[in-house]
Amino acid sequence: MSSMTTLFLNLKPLNSSPLPSTRKTHFNSSNLNISISVLPKRKGSSYRKLRVSSGLIEPDGGKLVELFVKKDQKDEKKKEALLIPRIKLSKIDLEWVHVLSEGWASPLNGFMRESQFLQTLHFNSLRLDDGSVVNMSVPIVLAIDDSQKLRIGESSKVALVDSDDNPIAILKDIEIYKHNKEERIARTWGTTAPGLPYADQAITNAGNWLIGGDLEVIEPVNYNDGLDRFRLSPAQLREEFTKRNADAVFAFQLRNPVHNGHALLMTDTRKRLLDMGYKNPVLLLHPLGGYTKADDVPLSWRMKQHEKVLEDGVLDPETTVVSIFPSPMHYAGPTEVQWHAKARINAGANFYIVGRDPAGMGHPTEKRDLYDADHGKKVLSMAPGLERLNILPFKVAAYDKTQGKMAFFDPSRPSDFIFISGTKMRTLARNKENPPNGFMCPGGWKVLVDYYDSLAVPENGRVPDAVPA
Amino acid sequence: MSSMTTLFLNLKPLNSSPLPSTRKTHFNSSNLNISISVLPKRKGSSYRKLRVSSGLIEPDGGKLVELFVKKDQKDEKKKEALLIPRIKLSKIDLEWVHVLSEGWASPLNGFMRESQFLQTLHFNSLRLDDGSVVNMSVPIVLAIDDSQKLRIGESSKVALVDSDDNPIAILKDIEIYKHNKEERIARTWGTTAPGLPYADQAITNAGNWLIGGDLEVIEPVNYNDGLDRFRLSPAQLREEFTKRNADAVFAFQLRNPVHNGHALLMTDTRKRLLDMGYKNPVLLLHPLGGYTKADDVPLSWRMKQHEKVLEDGVLDPETTVVSIFPSPMHYAGPTEVQWHAKARINAGANFYIVGRDPAGMGHPTEKRDLYDADHGKKVLSMAPGLERLNILPFKVAAYDKTQGKMAFFDPSRPSDFIFISGTKMRTLARNKENPPNGFMCPGGWKVLVDYYDSLAVPENGRVPDAVPA
Repeated sequence: MSSMTTLFLNLKPLNSSPLPSTRKTHFNSSNLNISISVLPKRKGSSYRKLRVSSGLIEPDGGKLVELFVKKDQKDEKKKEALLIPRIKLSKIDLEWVHVLSEGWASPLNGFMRESQFLQTLHFNSLRLDDGSVVNMSVPIVLAIDDSQKLRIGESSKVALVDSDDNPIAILKDIEIYKHNKEERIARTWGTTAPGLPYADQAITNAGNWLIGGDLEVIEPVNYNDGLDRFRLSPAQLREEFTKRNADAVFAFQLRNPVHNGHALLMTDTRKRLLDMGYKNPVLLLHPLGGYTKADDVPLSWRMKQHEKVLEDGVLDPETTVVSIFPSPMHYAGPTEVQWHAKARINAGANFYIVGRDPAGMGHPTEKRDLYDADHGKKVLSMAPGLERLNILPFKVAAYDKTQGKMAFFDPSRPSDFIFISGTKMRTLARNKENPPNGFMCPGGWKVLVDYYDSLAVPENGRVPDAVPA
Repeated sequence: MSSMTTLFLNLKPLNSSPLPSTRKTHFNSSNLNISISVLPKRKGSSYRKLRVSSGLIEPDGGKLVELFVKKDQKDEKKKEALLIPRIKLSKIDLEWVHVLSEGWASPLNGFMRESQFLQTLHFNSLRLDDGSVVNMSVPIVLAIDDSQKLRIGESSKVALVDSDDNPIAILKDIEIYKHNKEERIARTWGTTAPGLPYADQAITNAGNWLIGGDLEVIEPVNYNDGLDRFRLSPAQLREEFTKRNADAVFAFQLRNPVHNGHALLMTDTRKRLLDMGYKNPVLLLHPLGGYTKADDVPLSWRMKQHEKVLEDGVLDPETTVVSIFPSPMHYAGPTEVQWHAKARINAGANFYIVGRDPAGMGHPTEKRDLYDADHGKKVLSMAPGLERLNILPFKVAAYDKTQGKMAFFDPSRPSDFIFISGTKMRTLARNKENPPNGFMCPGGWKVLVDYYDSLAVPENGRVPDAVPA
């Protein structure tokens, strides 16, 4: 990833404020005074006091809920964690701790208790004490099995530890309730067909109980994959948008390489926002960084590809923030797109771009898409708790043969356009074939080809795992 | 049903109002001046103008939506129905036309269009134009198949006809959209296991399209089963509650025979409401009259049984209105109980009694209940659009051996109580065994025994259909 260093910007603390500097960096190639020194992250209680610019959309529930213990309590909490029952977190569990700890799911302050779980399953939303409603469409829950439940016994709290038994967090005022996996899967995905990636990975073989409670995070979650500095928290993103004087933030969720059709859409969105009277709309280009299915392009390669896209000037770094969204992927279509949108509100985005079949995939056992391609944007536009968010439906871009570039599809001359699906794109890259000129910047395309090259069957015949390490 | 005539009360028109008299009768044995003349029903546009007492809870959306065409337009609409594409209604479709026509699902004014269908599946609620939210948890939809869709072509309206091709209604400004049965079942029931009664009956073999639109009902739905006079519409119930000066209406949904535990609960509820300061709480004893699964006791037998319960004085007819709720049964547990409650708001009820595992059943393929017994009341208490309704959780009643009667379960002396489940009750009645004295009034019990007797295998070995004709 050394080539990415040319894009790093070391954020300076704001002198006029008691805020800590954000310790992460992000793409901003417009800044010529580049520093590659990445300061160690220091998350903690200080963020709790972060004042959010009044220019940005309010977080759900009115304030961003960060769940880190105060620095001076860390040692005490670590000791406490040794004395209470422990639960070892899976990789996906840890990603959810990350998500919760930084407030992406505000106002959730821990893994869901049963009343929140039920509201999520039935209403895709939570009613707060003051009667207001926030969106919450995917269950953020922690499963335990019978023996773990037995070990917890009457304890009111548990320690959550990583695979090396390091204490990550304490879950307190716990509530243990039944994990009806069939019902959870049916209500979240609208199917119970075997082969749903997230269900296979994190539900079907998980325990028969869920444990909810308030989360106290001792150690911020890091992945040590060279990309931690791109994982800006909602508070850090808000700080960055404020620093840039953004008066509109439009978020683009993605889990695929960026091609020029995407770029066209994002550029066009900015134009539309300027036309609407906004002075400085900023794009949050926000690749998902948590669990993805095996045949998706891994995060590290996607980040390399995004870097090239900015390097090649396809997107304007001046008005673009690239950061990693730490959530795991459900592939739950209309249900999940609400989560993707809601989390971005918490990060300060008041516009959300939604495409065709967001968070969708093929049906696991039938020859069709799992979701109707239009349901995502329809459901999003009607979702409780998202009324404050402006939904921007994706215009369809395709390769215009007459112009030799990606352009918005013109239904009056359909034969001039070539649609290049994700599957088609991956097949081309895998076969080292080139897409039409102007489909993707050459540097970005090379990254894709290199990725599939790296997967080529080695001499021992074993295909390396496509999932990022 | 002739024995029921002793309970009939012919409602008199209110002289002080331009309202039509309600043309249906209901149980009220306290009235000694009994008339058995049942006037023909005359539903129609007049109900649209019904003014609702300010003392009753407002219908969802602010006004009761009745969908009958004006009397003077009937002939014209019948003629129109002959000229447009036709859809033949199934028995369950017809029950939904009944439900919609009388405003149980207010403010729905016809079979759901896609935006309503999606909101129901994802949010169990509908957002109205003014931003307010009403509950709507089960899809009220009409399925058509490919050939019907083809026949409809570009027509903007269709005629809905009964099994004898009589025009019942016109559906106008139609919208045809995909019927994803798997997703509908998964999101409504939280399972896709084969053997869900409603799904088997009305979804799995239904067409691949849904047709929504505005409903104009030409002929009120009648069943000619001797029970039509007990099918009071929400407007008629509201009129009755107003006439009785009810200042609280508490609804009790049931699809089973009434035993003394139910009666105890209902009597106790009235006491609690009086304690709360209400002067005249009225009970709406509201057996479900639409589709039920084959092993439920059919409506006609349940009505006979309810009659005996009132005759025996177990419930006070002075403060009880017995009427039939025309909806078909989904057996969709926590999702369906919301529909059961919402519909009763529209009929004027502001208190709703909810029991253990409402609208639940056994899992169709696993040895367990489909739903957690507590989820129904929990989901109901959190459901969007039901905030105005007071939820009264069912206290557990059981047979107290020390008192020789049904009483509220006392956890301090569990061995004194016998729990008699619905299954146990049915088994006893089927075997002509008697339950403990005081479980059910003898007249009511005899009806049950007679019902199972009527099912006894005749000489030809063929068991008669248990579903009401």
